[in-house]
Amino acid sequence: MSHKLLIINSNSNPAATERIRTGLAPHVRPETTLTYVNAALGPQGIDTHLDVAVSAVETAKVVAAQHGQYHAYIVACGADPGLDVCRQIVDEPVIGIAEAAMLMACTLGYKFSILTTLEAEIPGVEELVARYGLTARLASVRAIEMSTAELGQREAVAQRLAEGARLAVREDRAEVIVLTGSVMVGLEAQISETAQVPTLAGLVCAYHLAEALMAYGLKTSRAYKYRQLKKHDQLLGYDGLQAVYSQ
Amino acid sequence: MSHKLLIINSNSNPAATERIRTGLAPHVRPETTLTYVNAALGPQGIDTHLDVAVSAVETAKVVAAQHGQYHAYIVACGADPGLDVCRQIVDEPVIGIAEAAMLMACTLGYKFSILTTLEAEIPGVEELVARYGLTARLASVRAIEMSTAELGQREAVAQRLAEGARLAVREDRAEVIVLTGSVMVGLEAQISETAQVPTLAGLVCAYHLAEALMAYGLKTSRAYKYRQLKKHDQLLGYDGLQAVYSQ
Amino acid sequence: MSHKLLIINSNSNPAATERIRTGLAPHVRPETTLTYVNAALGPQGIDTHLDVAVSAVETAKVVAAQHGQYHAYIVACGADPGLDVCRQIVDEPVIGIAEAAMLMACTLGYKFSILTTLEAEIPGVEELVARYGLTARLASVRAIEMSTAELGQREAVAQRLAEGARLAVREDRAEVIVLTGSVMVGLEAQISETAQVPTLAGLVCAYHLAEALMAYGLKTSRAYKYRQLKKHDQLLGYDGLQAVYSQ
Amino acid sequence: MSHKLLIINSNSNPAATERIRTGLAPHVRPETTLTYVNAALGPQGIDTHLDVAVSAVETAKVVAAQHGQYHAYIVACGADPGLDVCRQIVDEPVIGIAEAAMLMACTLGYKFSILTTLEAEIPGVEELVARYGLTARLASVRAIEMSTAELGQREAVAQRLAEGARLAVREDRAEVIVLTGSVMVGLEAQISETAQVPTLAGLVCAYHLAEALMAYGLKTSRAYKYRQLKKHDQLLGYDGLQAVYSQ
Amino acid sequence: MSHKLLIINSNSNPAATERIRTGLAPHVRPETTLTYVNAALGPQGIDTHLDVAVSAVETAKVVAAQHGQYHAYIVACGADPGLDVCRQIVDEPVIGIAEAAMLMACTLGYKFSILTTLEAEIPGVEELVARYGLTARLASVRAIEMSTAELGQREAVAQRLAEGARLAVREDRAEVIVLTGSVMVGLEAQISETAQVPTLAGLVCAYHLAEALMAYGLKTSRAYKYRQLKKHDQLLGYDGLQAVYSQ
Amino acid sequence: MSHKLLIINSNSNPAATERIRTGLAPHVRPETTLTYVNAALGPQGIDTHLDVAVSAVETAKVVAAQHGQYHAYIVACGADPGLDVCRQIVDEPVIGIAEAAMLMACTLGYKFSILTTLEAEIPGVEELVARYGLTARLASVRAIEMSTAELGQREAVAQRLAEGARLAVREDRAEVIVLTGSVMVGLEAQISETAQVPTLAGLVCAYHLAEALMAYGLKTSRAYKYRQLKKHDQLLGYDGLQAVYSQ
Repeated sequence: MSHKLLIINSNSNPAATERIRTGLAPHVRPETTLTYVNAALGPQGIDTHLDVAVSAVETAKVVAAQHGQYHAYIVACGADPGLDVCRQIVDEPVIGIAEAAMLMACTLGYKFSILTTLEAEIPGVEELVARYGLTARLASVRAIEMSTAELGQREAVAQRLAEGARLAVREDRAEVIVLTGSVMVGLEAQISETAQVPTLAGLVCAYHLAEALMAYGLKTSRAYKYRQLKKHDQLLGYDGLQAVYSQ
Repeated sequence: MSHKLLIINSNSNPAATERIRTGLAPHVRPETTLTYVNAALGPQGIDTHLDVAVSAVETAKVVAAQHGQYHAYIVACGADPGLDVCRQIVDEPVIGIAEAAMLMACTLGYKFSILTTLEAEIPGVEELVARYGLTARLASVRAIEMSTAELGQREAVAQRLAEGARLAVREDRAEVIVLTGSVMVGLEAQISETAQVPTLAGLVCAYHLAEALMAYGLKTSRAYKYRQLKKHDQLLGYDGLQAVYSQ
Repeated sequence: MSHKLLIINSNSNPAATERIRTGLAPHVRPETTLTYVNAALGPQGIDTHLDVAVSAVETAKVVAAQHGQYHAYIVACGADPGLDVCRQIVDEPVIGIAEAAMLMACTLGYKFSILTTLEAEIPGVEELVARYGLTARLASVRAIEMSTAELGQREAVAQRLAEGARLAVREDRAEVIVLTGSVMVGLEAQISETAQVPTLAGLVCAYHLAEALMAYGLKTSRAYKYRQLKKHDQLLGYDGLQAVYSQ
Repeated sequence: MSHKLLIINSNSNPAATERIRTGLAPHVRPETTLTYVNAALGPQGIDTHLDVAVSAVETAKVVAAQHGQYHAYIVACGADPGLDVCRQIVDEPVIGIAEAAMLMACTLGYKFSILTTLEAEIPGVEELVARYGLTARLASVRAIEMSTAELGQREAVAQRLAEGARLAVREDRAEVIVLTGSVMVGLEAQISETAQVPTLAGLVCAYHLAEALMAYGLKTSRAYKYRQLKKHDQLLGYDGLQAVYSQ
Repeated sequence: MSHKLLIINSNSNPAATERIRTGLAPHVRPETTLTYVNAALGPQGIDTHLDVAVSAVETAKVVAAQHGQYHAYIVACGADPGLDVCRQIVDEPVIGIAEAAMLMACTLGYKFSILTTLEAEIPGVEELVARYGLTARLASVRAIEMSTAELGQREAVAQRLAEGARLAVREDRAEVIVLTGSVMVGLEAQISETAQVPTLAGLVCAYHLAEALMAYGLKTSRAYKYRQLKKHDQLLGYDGLQAVYSQ
Repeated sequence: MSHKLLIINSNSNPAATERIRTGLAPHVRPETTLTYVNAALGPQGIDTHLDVAVSAVETAKVVAAQHGQYHAYIVACGADPGLDVCRQIVDEPVIGIAEAAMLMACTLGYKFSILTTLEAEIPGVEELVARYGLTARLASVRAIEMSTAELGQREAVAQRLAEGARLAVREDRAEVIVLTGSVMVGLEAQISETAQVPTLAGLVCAYHLAEALMAYGLKTSRAYKYRQLKKHDQLLGYDGLQAVYSQ
């Protein structure tokens, strides 16, 4: 069956969207059509709590606007911004790349380590893991101390990730390495070679997991957490999202 | 000392702001100056994941705009939207009303129950409690099955809350009742009388906790989770928040 | 790419293998070749701790014998018998159907309930969930009180499962239903209709997850838990497994 | 409103009581009247499990004797001895300084570290944190390896605490430092300067939290854990506590 | 080998000591000498937090006075009062009857339920279980709503315990029943017959566990938690415990 | 009373059985009769997941064959293979040596460390501790990096264990050392002397715990987890275990 899948780069940087497209392209099944879009507004890289909050709304705007046109949606940012919001909006599966990588890592080893950009983000990543109920599977979160603005320096990023992975295996007993940053895709082989353990790019995991969910024909649950609610108020200043209230 | 405190109603409904002001007024120390403001945009009541996400950004806008003019900030919405965002923006303490109520409840009994509006919000409240690391202290979360739009029906709200509290004590072994909804303030006495346990309005707890933090002269930590980061990008479409990047 | 996948029915009952084949068939991609095999020896249905232990060894025998001929292996029994053993033996991914269903359920709702056969198995299932680190995501485990020997009574099984699912949603706040029993495949739609939440057959989830892992070209980690060990002893009475020692 | 607050130094050392009075004085609101008292009997410093147990009883004696004369009570010892006992005796809030510091720390950062006196006390402090349900918020407990008898060496204590705080931030990722020892009050600024994170003296936190609870008019819950029980027995040898039985 | 064992009834009621002696007598090995003693002072039954605190000190007094004369000590009260204190005082094993019963129950089933006297004690029992790190093994705590003063009504106690056990098995999925109250010894058979699961009296478990520890020649660890500390202060008003400081 | 106890060496190596017999002999009460037997088939040392799985079945075969002839059974292998299986088969207590050591260690200190053979086994040991619900009591698991085949080098083993114990105390804050390997028995004194904390051989703990359970006359619970199930199928190829189905 032919599936249509929307890949949402939660930041507003088209260059990052291109890197995502390039990185994911080799993995895409011929019968699946992928559309790449980035947030119209918001940050160009997602580094701070503010960035996460704004991009959550911007991601929701994209999903709400494209409603009904895709078989699944991927939120292509390592903080999984707006994941819960989107799941309440559309019926089709919405996959976060951090979540997808963690779930898939669980099948390849007992403990995984996550590599992120800045040390200041480590508590946020740990909270994400806890929110997904996967703390028992986490070996560690390590930062490469480069902001998203520096992620274009491909070779430096790769080296720092490889070194972080090596330390995670040796010192934290990681068995699998998870790269949640969407633009880290394509570096898995180099990191695996250094660290000698499987390395997963969240973006690729999310893609394959989306294929799995689409193939099985699954939809998001409407009980409890993602139950929809008809509202009659006005969502001031967020016209693009107003329609969500009357679904 | 004379303190200035900003109370942010995270929704865009001035009537709710008024109810918050009226409810909190009897508790305010004469030497403290409170300013009440609601979000300029966004939802009029916070019911869905989308509402929480949008109001997080709108709350951050308020805090960023008022930066440096207050000794503390209170996010007056039971979902504590944007709490982490605001803490990274301003140095002065930022208090969420759900968090404040839970912390204060811990000193009055071992287990507390939280009363919320809709059953669909229970998983979100449980996640909030888990995020604050307080799951061991939670007896239960119970919903009164009224949306924020119906919260104006004061007497019905009070009765449902009292009944929920009574059941929480009897069936879930709650020792303290926590009301996180900001407009539930003022109903504590009626609920306590029915349930025969202390009942805390998050809004009042947040106010008193803010006084405590201001009196002690405390500031938010800048290590790890709330470390600030200078950014040189543009935050497209969010002009009011752009200044945060260059702090 | 054309993948070869081995589906191992961990019990020795060829009729169950046929039901598995029939149930999974509609889900299989045309370019993937599935081979179905059951344990040569051991129990005909897996009900007791002894059954799980014996079928773990028998499952390992199958995997060891087929070593190198497949791109992935699925252990098609709801107790995931021998999963760790098989992962240490072969390099290619080995997927358990209980594990796969739980991981996939995590993307569709916050809490899932698992339906199993006998009440005596509930503690075992809870231990499995805990071992996978997913206790926080578990709403409940419910039993239909039918042994594996009775699972051929298709309509009765379906009705009991549907009723169990309905109760799990209403009383345990389940948002997704997980069927771990391999022969429960094919009943998802009927159960979903009753319980009004997504219902996942572990077998189908495992298949799609295996496709995802194969497509990404992933292998089991050889660090720590699944590190292989060359041994020079004799594995008395288990000739078919002796070769594992010298890998 | 004018509040009367009793500060109980749980050890029998009047010099320590004086240090507590001196340390807390600068923080006290003019309209609040504080009375300082130490245990009549028991240890002069609280170092061992025996010291904690004896001072729990002595603290309870003080509270029972002063019953009804104060709006709140503070147990001014870092082990919070007798906290549960006192809460069951008097209706007004009873605050422990360790508990207060932990709760307040939760609003300033995600993880806090606690500095204590002797390494042998670390397990006890960890148990206290676990009992309060706050283990997820704990970065570490570190000891300065000085017994209470040495705490008079003010400068040495300050230096060891500052060094412990610095290490807690750097190696344990602490975002806030908690000083539970009552006589550590007054050293916060020096420690904060070294460690560059907020530093909280439990004693000051307890005072401000007591103000908050008094201002809100809260009382301890009488459901479950702190339910009172009329007894008709004799409490042999503890005449000062006999009256508690007939409350 | 001939062992000498001290059984300390932590309350001051000699009648209870007699019931303990009578209940334990049929279990004692001929070559072991048991000495029974109750607290000289303190409560006659242990119902409140105050009772637990006072009896902890009184238990410690007994142990300190008998120091060096026994091969092991049993604290024969279901709240395990003063257990940590005693372990820091004497080198020989000190066993609490609640702890012993829980540990032994772990070998007979996965989940145990604890039967206690008053509902108000349930949170305290749950805290004890959590302190021992055994929360995962706890099915429930149930109260028979009789105070210690009523425990002499043997038949009524037995019936309420049997009914509590039956409900624990049916509703809470308990597999083993734990009786922590020291005077409940002797009722195991009657309860087992009703509930159809093994029923353990903490007192008997503690005795057998003490035999096990004595036979193996084990002593309490002196690292960290139970490290002893020489003190030069005076323990005012607790002469019988002063010697502990100079051990 | 005279008890009969079966000690099952789960591997097929009679030399190991002799070392177990020699090691345990000095601890055995004269009135107790011990029978030692090893698995007829399976691995000669238990190092891999496969070894654990096979020896679980072989241990069950021994227990099933000896059914009714003993008052208790000890599974003398540090991985506790087949423990759950055996408990479902026989009514009398079945003790695992890892479990026994952990339970007994809980009475001597707060945190214990476990010493095992290979680093690859650490995740398995951690899972075992988690399965027993004792993670909160675990300081660490450390490996001596010797396979079971090398355990005959007694002096080297002792030195590595002593060094591991010393590090566990100093770096991981262990208060008690647990040796789960059955052939490590007899080395406790040497390790204790180096590490200065109590050191427990699982085998000896299991023996004494078995004596305790036998003396109290306890049987395994038949509710839930260990409920027996009559089956009418054939257990193909496992004739020795067929009888279990018709119990």
